[in-house]
Amino acid sequence: MTEEISNGHSPPSKNRDTEIHEGEDMIQKKEGGVLTPRGFQSSGVHANIKKERRDISLLYTQKEAIVAGTFTQNQIKAPSVVRNQELLERQEFFHALIVNSKIANVVTGERGVLNNQKMAEILADKLGLFSDQVLTGSTGIIGAQLPMEKIETGIAASVDALGETPRHGLHAAEGICTTDTCTKEVAYQFEWEGKSVTIGGMAKGSGMINPNMATMFSFLTTDVSITKPLLQKAMRKSVEDSYNLITVDGDTSTNDMTLIFANGAAQNLIIDDEESEGFSLFCEALDAVNHHLAREIVKDGEGAKKLITFEVNGAKSYADAKRVIHAISSSSLVKTAFYGEDANWGRILCAIGYSEASIEPNKISLEYKNSQGSIKLLEKGEPLDFDERLAKKILEEREIDVRVDLDVGKKRLIGYGCDLSHEYVEINGSYRS
Amino acid sequence: MTEEISNGHSPPSKNRDTEIHEGEDMIQKKEGGVLTPRGFQSSGVHANIKKERRDISLLYTQKEAIVAGTFTQNQIKAPSVVRNQELLERQEFFHALIVNSKIANVVTGERGVLNNQKMAEILADKLGLFSDQVLTGSTGIIGAQLPMEKIETGIAASVDALGETPRHGLHAAEGICTTDTCTKEVAYQFEWEGKSVTIGGMAKGSGMINPNMATMFSFLTTDVSITKPLLQKAMRKSVEDSYNLITVDGDTSTNDMTLIFANGAAQNLIIDDEESEGFSLFCEALDAVNHHLAREIVKDGEGAKKLITFEVNGAKSYADAKRVIHAISSSSLVKTAFYGEDANWGRILCAIGYSEASIEPNKISLEYKNSQGSIKLLEKGEPLDFDERLAKKILEEREIDVRVDLDVGKKRLIGYGCDLSHEYVEINGSYRS
Repeated sequence: MTEEISNGHSPPSKNRDTEIHEGEDMIQKKEGGVLTPRGFQSSGVHANIKKERRDISLLYTQKEAIVAGTFTQNQIKAPSVVRNQELLERQEFFHALIVNSKIANVVTGERGVLNNQKMAEILADKLGLFSDQVLTGSTGIIGAQLPMEKIETGIAASVDALGETPRHGLHAAEGICTTDTCTKEVAYQFEWEGKSVTIGGMAKGSGMINPNMATMFSFLTTDVSITKPLLQKAMRKSVEDSYNLITVDGDTSTNDMTLIFANGAAQNLIIDDEESEGFSLFCEALDAVNHHLAREIVKDGEGAKKLITFEVNGAKSYADAKRVIHAISSSSLVKTAFYGEDANWGRILCAIGYSEASIEPNKISLEYKNSQGSIKLLEKGEPLDFDERLAKKILEEREIDVRVDLDVGKKRLIGYGCDLSHEYVEINGSYRS
Repeated sequence: MTEEISNGHSPPSKNRDTEIHEGEDMIQKKEGGVLTPRGFQSSGVHANIKKERRDISLLYTQKEAIVAGTFTQNQIKAPSVVRNQELLERQEFFHALIVNSKIANVVTGERGVLNNQKMAEILADKLGLFSDQVLTGSTGIIGAQLPMEKIETGIAASVDALGETPRHGLHAAEGICTTDTCTKEVAYQFEWEGKSVTIGGMAKGSGMINPNMATMFSFLTTDVSITKPLLQKAMRKSVEDSYNLITVDGDTSTNDMTLIFANGAAQNLIIDDEESEGFSLFCEALDAVNHHLAREIVKDGEGAKKLITFEVNGAKSYADAKRVIHAISSSSLVKTAFYGEDANWGRILCAIGYSEASIEPNKISLEYKNSQGSIKLLEKGEPLDFDERLAKKILEEREIDVRVDLDVGKKRLIGYGCDLSHEYVEINGSYRS
């Protein structure tokens, strides 16, 4: 997503999926999600923690898997985040991930730490594993204790329900959701040296989403054979350019993480060289999975009616481009203007001004565009007259591209945001009920 | 508002006005606003820039006044901000301030700079002043040009309408408003060495409010005789502890400023010593004016139904306390929970966690309180069972105090915020119409 190209001469932004398909037959989109790679099983069950929807998800690989991940940078971290981080540092192989939704089990004191450990132990017991081979995740309300009886019954049910059909994958994708209105799954495959390697994933949003690391759940599986350092490197870079460039409400959660389980079932020649074609293909497929899931999260942001693509050109640095995207996409005033389909573009300039990026006000240009056409609003600091009817047409669409040119450097970056609607207020005014 | 007192032993937070009245007979609240001090005149007229409300305000002192001010830290600054800053640096005395609302005249290129200068020239011409003796202000939509015919007619009308009754002050306070639902005026007086000195003020909100300097309009008058460096010093400190600790939506505007005109009409012995009782009294009265206006701005925040007072105790530093207040009071999730009268206190912890203040999660305590009672939600990192019915009662009130104890230092700070309501979305979805 970050490209160092000449300022002002960049091609129009494209859907990432399209970009990958064009002339890149080596990476192919596949049906399914976490069960598309070989050797994985999953389930999602309803343990009565939530009123109606599935609330416990299990992911399992009989073949041992190496795991890489990224974790929230919030200083207040859930026991699940702390424990997973510690385990990933000191241990090589894992077999399972157990996740509950509705209760985040964070700011729950000593009892919360014990309950989190207990989740891993209950599952390990049922599957004949050591508890250290089990990772955990929780998402939902902060400060509430887990209902351990329901959790215990639910984990047992999730083991009984394990399977490897697409339906099992879908159930797992449902069980991790909170306010999400749809499941988010995707898979990509590539061929290398006569073997096909697959990466699949499932993710959840849809509040507390803010670019500053992995700020949601994204659980990936792959049957690739790769070294742990390269898996971690690929994942960190890919997260930085996908989930870390999306914003729903600017709140960085206490519980969020991305994890990728790699079980080697593809039996490819192990990827151990950063310069190899294998690593390059793997990174490309991984980016495709993460970009797809990141866009899906924003599209399904709490109450979101619009997906806004923010393209910043001509920034002095990557950090500056990110600052601008963050400021614009987090501004309640910008977001409500898009919700109201009002071309009140000055609010974008205001946000650029307080972003702390290096700028020169008299060099900034701004444009809105999508399938309806494009309108230039500002050219090197001078506001332009524009056709309000065309602006209205563009803003009425579900997807809008905002193109900013800072004209002080050569960095280009694309991020995603959404509008701020009545439904966001409605959802978050009564989240606990 | 910043007090270095022992952590955990601070008295309950009080209404600032009450604090000042208690045992401080030397500072008295007065009726009116900018015309309560001697020697000022004002007016507010309707020049058809807005549909119905007054949109041009004039403030005038026949006696020359020194002026101090603070200005937005947004890198994109309105021509009025840039010009006022330059004039304040190079010139001693001023006689007038002309302000329009509805159009912010920023991001308007060269023409915007000329139009702003023209506003000062038109007024100077009518009043027989040099244009450099006139300061300007504009607030409203970004990126739109000023309707100069209406401005010219309006300025002429504002000169004809000048007067010194409370009604004239009220009209000026109306003319600077945008989405404000009420005018904001206040005055305080103190006695020193046989003279009474008065400070009055008017302010406007109510969107793009965020603590990071003067982020709204606050125009003050005083009849004090004081040196310019001491006036500037008092104003800067007072702004830091009042307007810079309030948040409506986290957006730092391009146009906002505070100005104080001091014309010396009180004929007091000039205040030229920072250690003098006169300076101390002046600072106290100035704080009273600014705190009052800051609270009024938050109370009248766009769509706001609740005034939330955030008290942070036990922070390691002033900067850390401010980070925590900023993070909590800006969080859309915290704000919607208060709107929904839902004791979803975990979101406050989440915001503390990403505030970048130095914290220890296991030391944090949290309490909600107001006239209905108080509930402890978290004690040194352990969540407490609480009475949901009492919580509901507390949250149903118009004013709620949130008390955070970080327990890692001794700094205490109080800031103000509001909730995020459907009305905010409504107002900002169609601001230009």
